[in-house]
Amino acid sequence: MGSKDVHEISEKIQSMEIRGAGKIARSAAEALRQFAKDSDEESIDEFLSQLREAGGVLISSRPSAVSLPNSVRYILHRVENTRVDDVEELKEAAIKIADEFIKNSVEAVEKIGLYGAKRIEDGDTVMTHCNSAAALEVIKSAWGEGKDIRVIASEARPRYQGHITVRELAAEGIPVTLIVDSAVRAVMKQVDKVVVGADSIAANGAVINKIGTSQIALCAHEARVRFFVAAETYKFHPETSLGDIVEIEERDPSEVADPADFEGVNIRNLAFDVTPPEYIDLIVTEKGVIPAQAAIMIIKEEFGWAVGGRW
Amino acid sequence: MGSKDVHEISEKIQSMEIRGAGKIARSAAEALRQFAKDSDEESIDEFLSQLREAGGVLISSRPSAVSLPNSVRYILHRVENTRVDDVEELKEAAIKIADEFIKNSVEAVEKIGLYGAKRIEDGDTVMTHCNSAAALEVIKSAWGEGKDIRVIASEARPRYQGHITVRELAAEGIPVTLIVDSAVRAVMKQVDKVVVGADSIAANGAVINKIGTSQIALCAHEARVRFFVAAETYKFHPETSLGDIVEIEERDPSEVADPADFEGVNIRNLAFDVTPPEYIDLIVTEKGVIPAQAAIMIIKEEFGWAVGGRW
Amino acid sequence: MGSKDVHEISEKIQSMEIRGAGKIARSAAEALRQFAKDSDEESIDEFLSQLREAGGVLISSRPSAVSLPNSVRYILHRVENTRVDDVEELKEAAIKIADEFIKNSVEAVEKIGLYGAKRIEDGDTVMTHCNSAAALEVIKSAWGEGKDIRVIASEARPRYQGHITVRELAAEGIPVTLIVDSAVRAVMKQVDKVVVGADSIAANGAVINKIGTSQIALCAHEARVRFFVAAETYKFHPETSLGDIVEIEERDPSEVADPADFEGVNIRNLAFDVTPPEYIDLIVTEKGVIPAQAAIMIIKEEFGWAVGGRW
Amino acid sequence: MGSKDVHEISEKIQSMEIRGAGKIARSAAEALRQFAKDSDEESIDEFLSQLREAGGVLISSRPSAVSLPNSVRYILHRVENTRVDDVEELKEAAIKIADEFIKNSVEAVEKIGLYGAKRIEDGDTVMTHCNSAAALEVIKSAWGEGKDIRVIASEARPRYQGHITVRELAAEGIPVTLIVDSAVRAVMKQVDKVVVGADSIAANGAVINKIGTSQIALCAHEARVRFFVAAETYKFHPETSLGDIVEIEERDPSEVADPADFEGVNIRNLAFDVTPPEYIDLIVTEKGVIPAQAAIMIIKEEFGWAVGGRW
Amino acid sequence: MGSKDVHEISEKIQSMEIRGAGKIARSAAEALRQFAKDSDEESIDEFLSQLREAGGVLISSRPSAVSLPNSVRYILHRVENTRVDDVEELKEAAIKIADEFIKNSVEAVEKIGLYGAKRIEDGDTVMTHCNSAAALEVIKSAWGEGKDIRVIASEARPRYQGHITVRELAAEGIPVTLIVDSAVRAVMKQVDKVVVGADSIAANGAVINKIGTSQIALCAHEARVRFFVAAETYKFHPETSLGDIVEIEERDPSEVADPADFEGVNIRNLAFDVTPPEYIDLIVTEKGVIPAQAAIMIIKEEFGWAVGGRW
Amino acid sequence: MGSKDVHEISEKIQSMEIRGAGKIARSAAEALRQFAKDSDEESIDEFLSQLREAGGVLISSRPSAVSLPNSVRYILHRVENTRVDDVEELKEAAIKIADEFIKNSVEAVEKIGLYGAKRIEDGDTVMTHCNSAAALEVIKSAWGEGKDIRVIASEARPRYQGHITVRELAAEGIPVTLIVDSAVRAVMKQVDKVVVGADSIAANGAVINKIGTSQIALCAHEARVRFFVAAETYKFHPETSLGDIVEIEERDPSEVADPADFEGVNIRNLAFDVTPPEYIDLIVTEKGVIPAQAAIMIIKEEFGWAVGGRW
Repeated sequence: MGSKDVHEISEKIQSMEIRGAGKIARSAAEALRQFAKDSDEESIDEFLSQLREAGGVLISSRPSAVSLPNSVRYILHRVENTRVDDVEELKEAAIKIADEFIKNSVEAVEKIGLYGAKRIEDGDTVMTHCNSAAALEVIKSAWGEGKDIRVIASEARPRYQGHITVRELAAEGIPVTLIVDSAVRAVMKQVDKVVVGADSIAANGAVINKIGTSQIALCAHEARVRFFVAAETYKFHPETSLGDIVEIEERDPSEVADPADFEGVNIRNLAFDVTPPEYIDLIVTEKGVIPAQAAIMIIKEEFGWAVGGRW
Repeated sequence: MGSKDVHEISEKIQSMEIRGAGKIARSAAEALRQFAKDSDEESIDEFLSQLREAGGVLISSRPSAVSLPNSVRYILHRVENTRVDDVEELKEAAIKIADEFIKNSVEAVEKIGLYGAKRIEDGDTVMTHCNSAAALEVIKSAWGEGKDIRVIASEARPRYQGHITVRELAAEGIPVTLIVDSAVRAVMKQVDKVVVGADSIAANGAVINKIGTSQIALCAHEARVRFFVAAETYKFHPETSLGDIVEIEERDPSEVADPADFEGVNIRNLAFDVTPPEYIDLIVTEKGVIPAQAAIMIIKEEFGWAVGGRW
Repeated sequence: MGSKDVHEISEKIQSMEIRGAGKIARSAAEALRQFAKDSDEESIDEFLSQLREAGGVLISSRPSAVSLPNSVRYILHRVENTRVDDVEELKEAAIKIADEFIKNSVEAVEKIGLYGAKRIEDGDTVMTHCNSAAALEVIKSAWGEGKDIRVIASEARPRYQGHITVRELAAEGIPVTLIVDSAVRAVMKQVDKVVVGADSIAANGAVINKIGTSQIALCAHEARVRFFVAAETYKFHPETSLGDIVEIEERDPSEVADPADFEGVNIRNLAFDVTPPEYIDLIVTEKGVIPAQAAIMIIKEEFGWAVGGRW
Repeated sequence: MGSKDVHEISEKIQSMEIRGAGKIARSAAEALRQFAKDSDEESIDEFLSQLREAGGVLISSRPSAVSLPNSVRYILHRVENTRVDDVEELKEAAIKIADEFIKNSVEAVEKIGLYGAKRIEDGDTVMTHCNSAAALEVIKSAWGEGKDIRVIASEARPRYQGHITVRELAAEGIPVTLIVDSAVRAVMKQVDKVVVGADSIAANGAVINKIGTSQIALCAHEARVRFFVAAETYKFHPETSLGDIVEIEERDPSEVADPADFEGVNIRNLAFDVTPPEYIDLIVTEKGVIPAQAAIMIIKEEFGWAVGGRW
Repeated sequence: MGSKDVHEISEKIQSMEIRGAGKIARSAAEALRQFAKDSDEESIDEFLSQLREAGGVLISSRPSAVSLPNSVRYILHRVENTRVDDVEELKEAAIKIADEFIKNSVEAVEKIGLYGAKRIEDGDTVMTHCNSAAALEVIKSAWGEGKDIRVIASEARPRYQGHITVRELAAEGIPVTLIVDSAVRAVMKQVDKVVVGADSIAANGAVINKIGTSQIALCAHEARVRFFVAAETYKFHPETSLGDIVEIEERDPSEVADPADFEGVNIRNLAFDVTPPEYIDLIVTEKGVIPAQAAIMIIKEEFGWAVGGRW
Repeated sequence: MGSKDVHEISEKIQSMEIRGAGKIARSAAEALRQFAKDSDEESIDEFLSQLREAGGVLISSRPSAVSLPNSVRYILHRVENTRVDDVEELKEAAIKIADEFIKNSVEAVEKIGLYGAKRIEDGDTVMTHCNSAAALEVIKSAWGEGKDIRVIASEARPRYQGHITVRELAAEGIPVTLIVDSAVRAVMKQVDKVVVGADSIAANGAVINKIGTSQIALCAHEARVRFFVAAETYKFHPETSLGDIVEIEERDPSEVADPADFEGVNIRNLAFDVTPPEYIDLIVTEKGVIPAQAAIMIIKEEFGWAVGGRW
């Protein structure tokens, strides 16, 4: 009855057995694929209605993860716009669309590396922040093409994900320098391009990413340094039109400093910030490299114009 | 013969027995004071020539500390411009000028607190960076006047001087919040004023201070938040006209991370950065509160127009 | 024969018996709907040709009102792109499309209120100008959701439409402050968001609205305050690509001051001004909330790419 | 005993029998002049001490008027820096300095007109706001020189001082146009220069003037239109370094609208605003025409560097 | 077999027998048209595969000319998206699409003149640079409509194409002024609009054009003067997302000065520069007048979203 | 009687026998020196009055050359402020002051080279425009110090003074590149500093120099490249407060192109333009290196506050 898989996967997403933006998105697509395969509905309208319901179940299992509703929307938007005469044809189409989504998702990071690397020139010094698979793929791919590049990575307090980044790059033999987060502006004159990842991207092209990203973008903008964001299209968030209305998560203060040592001091640990589109030159996606202003075109193409008018 | 004290103090400055911008400046003034007292020169020209020489000896003991040549310049500039008929009168004048410098220097931080506090309004949220006595005096003085303020302090990696700051303020009962250096832009919308100290100030009003300062100034500028610098006049640097030509010291990388853990990674530890005058609203000195553009007026008044044309 | 209704409605629009952007647009749609119903044309080409002619008659009755040609364009664009085999099917489609337009138009302001209110946060101070139904719906809707907001309204000289606004809001119990138009910049620091309406919106996102709007937008931009425009999609103007080429109406000087009292003085009464898209953060439409740069996407979707190449 | 005049004038200032920035300043100078004349002190120190006291009495009679302490400061600063051997010589000097101040003040507006008119070119359209004697003198003086100019004046709600301005200019035969305050940006493209007056000028060059001034300056800045301020040097305010800390007076709301007609509505009537120096091209004073950044040089020259460190 | 024409035309393009962006584009379309006509393929897939191959041959004959791949892409993109049941129908469609491209291309400059002239107002002073047929068509068309305009043309060193421009305009009786390239900023205050052509336009709206164009755009931007680009849609470059990555051709230094006269001097002759989209107000195409940000919409509509992901 | 020399020199200046800013200034100083030497006036007032008259005669011989009135002002300002008891002492002082001016002027360019070279760093690429002795002295002096620099020079149409510059630099062995004036923005990313001369400098720091200078400054500003002006203090213009009011000379059009070849074309040949102070980082003078905002301090120090209130 198909909905078995939907509920099973939905639960695994909720329990975080299935985790990571890409995996969650692909699992949801798989659930809908199986749902279409198992469906014995004989009317197009009924099938669509049940498919929508299944999508709703999946989305509700982890509403904060943008990749989850996006994979559901991707499939529903296309199935709904498929013109067929027969419910079986529609089920076929749904399966094909889900397969396509899964395939695209798997190949996305690799493609982002490929397209992004074209923007990196021989001799460039590239700055990155935190530890983004897509951003690092761009750097490694440029290095793999034989370009002579150097990387500057900020440490990304409080969790020092920059340490993972510099080790990962040094392991590939790429010359890499580690700096404290405060030194970004001081070294920006030596940087040619900045490449970072994204947690999600709003309809106006604003990018929500690891705390500190927007500050780096501001420094790059001031110094006329190109700022690139590497992100799969399922990171685009059709329900937010401006990043700054998004609620930004605060994490445990003890990641910053032990509160016991700081009596009377409030310690805040903001996890993300919002980079406005005017500080972003390009977003590298697996569909191609777009200016930030074209974010809304990606959203419209991938997920339809306005989903419930909610953005 | 007076020069005994000059050499003694000069050595103590060199050996860092005497340290701290204020103490160094006052010791040099004391050495010149004693020199004038002990001098048995009978001609004005000879006395001036020897006083200049003594000044040169003092300056050469630690050329990088801006407060040292400034105290010498302060005294020489005034002695040279004293119109007297008699060498003894000139010696008297020199002693008085040196005394005046010492007194001003001692009272400077307190006055800065007093004048700066007038710029802080009831209800303000004030951001600070690193651990500057003058900047904190402004905050404490405003608090002491009964103003209801809150403070946000960045941790100031790699040496965490922000920890000292938050403890110092919490001890006074001032509500204070600690954040990582990357979170500055994310919280800037909640800030009313930024107050920081200075290592030195160039003729165009550019401020050399702890790494990260210029980044905070840029974020404040973007958000139209007032940015104040608290600094004694002996921090003004007559020989630099633009901060960005100053050589910025790099410190031991192990303060950032243990190089042994990061094979193949270059670790840089920049100690200072340069904040351009267009990001600074006011400089609070013990002479009064001036716009950054008036830095050159302070320098001209304190140390004379162009010292050896070197700036 | 249908064209009876077309001419009747056309005359009523011309004589201003039918007035108000929304009503004019819906009447035109009704006229075309009736025209399609009554048509006894037997060829698709003929029907389309006559429908276009009817549209032309309607548009010519009041060329300056942007909502009128837009309603005609909306219907024609869709009818022309309907793929059918039979003229009767096409007439059916035309009727359905006209109905859809009328329904959308009726519901537009309510939806705008709903979507716009999501952009207003608890505790916000919202500035508005003049008296726009759509803008006030956003404010009332946010208040209706229980958000604790305050409003600042400018008086909107010379006709004081701001007086209507403050009374309308006070009647709902919303805390509201009235200021003179000159005080906008002085109070902007206390404002969180500006919400205004629009007379029409150009293809590049420029907004033509009541005199004073662009000045408020400039002050908001300077202070980094979000500036929202609330407007139905039929306000979008496919024939203007930049607002600044639009001829701005001048009204009777006696609204400003009695010319008899001011001999030798020229009194000008400009009715509208143009706010450039770079000062606008969002346009709230009944289709969703879009960045100003996406105005051209709305136009293309609603009315087709280039109507007669005239924009 | 001289202090009689001081107290008498002090009372008249307090009771507003003496009013207007210029008159207040000159009366205070006259009081100090008389005080010096009548003094029978035989020691320089005593005379100075009593003169300071007299100054203090005068200042305290109306602390908010910047011209009053400025006239006192002008005289004291110069008397204190006069090098004489004899108290009678000093009294002479004091009388001469007070005379000089009075003469300068009387001639100031005329000189401002003369110097300012040189900045107005044949064919210029000049915008002005409110009703400033100094600003209008610039315009009339340019017209008097035979320059073919036109003027645009805003009405200056709520008190319509713009009405006085347009009548005053029309009486001279100068072509003048009246607009509402909201229309400033819409007509700015046709303007060549803006000339306004000042209530006071801060040490950083910020200008406190009639509400609406800063908005006009912002619009001029956006359109690259030159913005001039016409102000006597006694308007310069040595105790404020940035205009924005000055408390801005709020006047009776009934000037804006009758509160009885607007139940539940808060009506605010802000009297002044602050124009930041970066929007001001020139300040025309009776000493010459200076860039806004040189405000601090005027203050230093006129009133000494830092008066009690209070700015 | 059709490919005869393809190869023949391909060779003529390579040998520069066929030259000029428009002619090259139309020849390629003609070759594909003939190819479709001659094809005796009986399967849709085979026909498409051979058509693609023919397109590849044409493109490879002059890879640097953007109009050539664009004409191929235009046809292929549309043929591939034609839904037919029968290969002969597809061939018919291909012929029709090629005809359509050719017709559009021929009419493009005339239409650009027509649409662009609407942006020129009576009394305007228009600046132009180099010698662009499309830009001059806009100017002549405005003049032809009876608008009283004046033109300022820069000489366009080193090849003085500005000389051709001023003669061409003077021949039409249009008042025209010639200046050196250095005088652009000095005369910009007298200019109302700038109109230039384009060699190619990137996906973000950046314009590659004759050296000096970006400097003029910067001066126009500083002075708030509208900057228009006149360009056929086949100038849009789907493979570049930001103009600045494009390799800019350097031409023979002897065009600048005779190297024999300048021993020891390096002479550079950069042929083109890149104008960023933020300095461009409108791009006038034969499809209509679009904001620069909509370049990506033109590309997507004309040539499909992402060609091989190469942009 | 001294005035013989005044008139003789005055005539030689008028007839352009004496030419060049430096020589004119020194000749005038010599004339006044001789005048003081020959004077047999016995009263201080008379002597001063006659000296002023002699100055007036000199100034009137070539009113447009800023260096001439400046040399007169320099001497008069100092003589008038000399406190002496005896007319002979005053004559002595006048001779000494004139000598001092002459000596300073002779040494000025050399000192400018010395001070300016400190701002050039090893490895810098320096752009220059036209052919300024002071600017080239900075470049040669840096090269002479062993700094490895490269120069880019624009050709400076219409008179190609850039050709003289590149030959002059190549003769010293300095690597130098020649470009057309249109290529400035295209190569600006490779430039570290721009150094140009000045014809005169206004009180607000605006620089009047060869046509094209302001355009280069704008491009440097956009790219955050440091822009330096090298100028002797006698180039500072006490009578202009903003450069843009200065009448800019237009030269013979035939320098641009032969009017006979361009019938119906207006050819303009603007000689100078005005660079606003916000695009200038430093002015290198023989007194030291100052920020552009300090121009007014130089003027006040050199020539007194306001000469006749004319600025």
